[in-house]
Amino acid sequence: MLKLEENKQISGFSKLSKTGKLKWIVENFFKDPELVARELKSYWLHDDQQKVFDAFSENTISNYVLPYGVAPNLIINGKTYCVPMVTEESSVVAAAAAAAKFWSTRGGIKATVKNTIKIGQVHFKWFGDAAKLKALFPDLKKLLISDTHDITSNMVKRGGGILDIELKDFSKDEPNYYQLFASFETCDSMGANFINSVLEQFGQTLRSFLKSQTTLNELEQDVDIIMCILSNYTPDCLVKVEVSCTIQELEDISLGMDASTFAERFYLAIRMAELDTFRATTHNKGIFNGMDAVVIATGNDFRAVESCGHTYAAKSGIYKSLSSCTIIDDVFTFSLELPLAIGTIGGLTKLHPIAKRSLELLGHPTATELMQIIAATGLVQNFAAVRSLVTTGIQKGHMKMHLMNILNHLNASDHEVSLSLNYFSDKSISFTAVRTFLNEIRHETQDTLV
Amino acid sequence: MLKLEENKQISGFSKLSKTGKLKWIVENFFKDPELVARELKSYWLHDDQQKVFDAFSENTISNYVLPYGVAPNLIINGKTYCVPMVTEESSVVAAAAAAAKFWSTRGGIKATVKNTIKIGQVHFKWFGDAAKLKALFPDLKKLLISDTHDITSNMVKRGGGILDIELKDFSKDEPNYYQLFASFETCDSMGANFINSVLEQFGQTLRSFLKSQTTLNELEQDVDIIMCILSNYTPDCLVKVEVSCTIQELEDISLGMDASTFAERFYLAIRMAELDTFRATTHNKGIFNGMDAVVIATGNDFRAVESCGHTYAAKSGIYKSLSSCTIIDDVFTFSLELPLAIGTIGGLTKLHPIAKRSLELLGHPTATELMQIIAATGLVQNFAAVRSLVTTGIQKGHMKMHLMNILNHLNASDHEVSLSLNYFSDKSISFTAVRTFLNEIRHETQDTLV
Repeated sequence: MLKLEENKQISGFSKLSKTGKLKWIVENFFKDPELVARELKSYWLHDDQQKVFDAFSENTISNYVLPYGVAPNLIINGKTYCVPMVTEESSVVAAAAAAAKFWSTRGGIKATVKNTIKIGQVHFKWFGDAAKLKALFPDLKKLLISDTHDITSNMVKRGGGILDIELKDFSKDEPNYYQLFASFETCDSMGANFINSVLEQFGQTLRSFLKSQTTLNELEQDVDIIMCILSNYTPDCLVKVEVSCTIQELEDISLGMDASTFAERFYLAIRMAELDTFRATTHNKGIFNGMDAVVIATGNDFRAVESCGHTYAAKSGIYKSLSSCTIIDDVFTFSLELPLAIGTIGGLTKLHPIAKRSLELLGHPTATELMQIIAATGLVQNFAAVRSLVTTGIQKGHMKMHLMNILNHLNASDHEVSLSLNYFSDKSISFTAVRTFLNEIRHETQDTLV
Repeated sequence: MLKLEENKQISGFSKLSKTGKLKWIVENFFKDPELVARELKSYWLHDDQQKVFDAFSENTISNYVLPYGVAPNLIINGKTYCVPMVTEESSVVAAAAAAAKFWSTRGGIKATVKNTIKIGQVHFKWFGDAAKLKALFPDLKKLLISDTHDITSNMVKRGGGILDIELKDFSKDEPNYYQLFASFETCDSMGANFINSVLEQFGQTLRSFLKSQTTLNELEQDVDIIMCILSNYTPDCLVKVEVSCTIQELEDISLGMDASTFAERFYLAIRMAELDTFRATTHNKGIFNGMDAVVIATGNDFRAVESCGHTYAAKSGIYKSLSSCTIIDDVFTFSLELPLAIGTIGGLTKLHPIAKRSLELLGHPTATELMQIIAATGLVQNFAAVRSLVTTGIQKGHMKMHLMNILNHLNASDHEVSLSLNYFSDKSISFTAVRTFLNEIRHETQDTLV
């Protein structure tokens, strides 16, 4: 039975129909329920399409729309890509496209995937002599591998599977705490479901193995398996992307300065992000602006990519820039190296209809090729942001974009847009300021008409 | 002039109309251009609606759809929220909703915003005696504040503005490198545009100030301003959220174990994420699963939130868990403290029509209230994930969700769904396996019909 409580609490919400959920929400949280229900329903798709999106998540009442754009002319290892990007942030796609174009005439991007190792862990407590456990481990390892044969056989056929399993001893930090630390090759899939299924079987095998060891006492035959779960930190699933040219080749009218001044300022900007965490966070955020847009467009999980990349940025003990820059013998080189665990099969890649088209647009890449595309987009994004910062500053472009957003929101006519662009060219832009200006010119027009 | 090149490169792409862009893309990258164009167009909204989304970004050809769901019953400081969430990952909304409900009968969430300081930096090189610069700084500081009066006056009226400006000396690490390091209160706005505008003026003031100093030599009167930009790392924009109850109150049939065993296992799971970076990355990823869903739903920037939060997680020199757990005198406490720089005015908050509705659904929160809501969603999300990990394991729920996604994609009937759920209850699930099974039962049905 549905139970509405005074203070907007509810029992049994998830069991309501979609329309029932929407009804309860608009009636309890909005001043004009019918208007809001109509508006949220206006984003619903045809039933067959909508069913797919609703199945991704729970308690859905509408769709959240983000613009789907592209950055053409991204050349990686000699191949040209038109990269799909999903972002709500203005300038991101334009900047990636501009920098991709810039480097397309300077040799493009060189990309290499260094390794593709994924990680999973079984965390457990075991109350016994660590030496005994270590002595038993070789036998256990064989069993862990054979017991998961059913789960891994398909992956092995595709060239992947379990690479290694280690026993890690954390008992110095937390009494009796150990891990089975496993590495995997998951080919073109991100591998989360595969790895987690294998790990849960590892847990069962570990339990039954210990129970069967007659050399162990009763306490040692027992084990507390706390959890079995993949790790999103994959420092050996590394991609490196790089652009490089002579200082002279950097020459470009749009820089507004000579190439060597630009190169020096650019180099310093990267250096600052290596020295200062406050700068590094923002610097790397810019890299993820580009990467996440592709991660989302291809149906991958940006939280996984973010958590892994930022952990990697802090691996030295100081959080610092993920990209680096050198100027050696007149050659400017800008590179980015980071771990990226993504997939081109499994997960949502086939299920999200637009993600599926994104992968088609990219020419059905393998996972390693997609790692290169995502990292390359991060690199050109970072190049564009830093270029903008060390030349004109970012506010000029940003504020114009913001002004256009506000003008659109206020349904400004072409004539009003043109007047506003002129008026705000030397003034600070806010929603209120723009609305006030528009009201004024609209009023003036009315006065004239009267 | 538009120029098509052999290898899928293009000049002047951004100048094409939206239809022109779509046409070029489908014709150059897809086998069935008309079908794909029709499909991508099927996501277009009515012109007036679409114009708004297209203005957020660039080179747009379609919309990317994500499900918009809600987690009701989140009680924070005694107030009940129905939280809007945007995520493509299954189980996230269900888990947040379940954990919100769980804690709603155990006192809800206590939340406090500790401080709300935002940061901006002017990075520059100055070739002179550091002591001279430091001596001049008090005068410079006054001028920095007075010169930005026009930009800050509105923010000051709202209770914000510039809080402080420091001169930071990095010249030991990089010769001649200094910063103006400024702190700001930006009230209910995230403040990026405000801060960047102020900083660019700081740069101009710094330049003219030094030029005018007759006590400085010619070299010292000059300055290289490398860049002026906000920092996304805001360690003093901190929110803390916490749930707490006695061990006995944790008792719940759904745990499948007694409350004290659960509490102990839960505590250990958090401890492991404090000790081991491989675990911490995944642990924190789960927190962001919840937080980002609200960040996106409210029109905020998840890259900014991610980069800040992960930098904070690494502040000790070791990347570790953002949440912590204690069991003291029979009282279980689970808390999360992290910096969150978000806004409820400015940016896309008013411009994105669904983000606007999200803020209305949350009762038009202030920025500090939204910090609490986002962090609380992260906390209950983390609670749900860890609860699942230390009790049933996550694969059971995950795989059922995944199976449903695949069945939807393959247009399974209700009867086929029921057969599949039964069949796969003890088998591993993949797209191929499900398709094969469906084909088999469909074939059988056909045979029967024949």
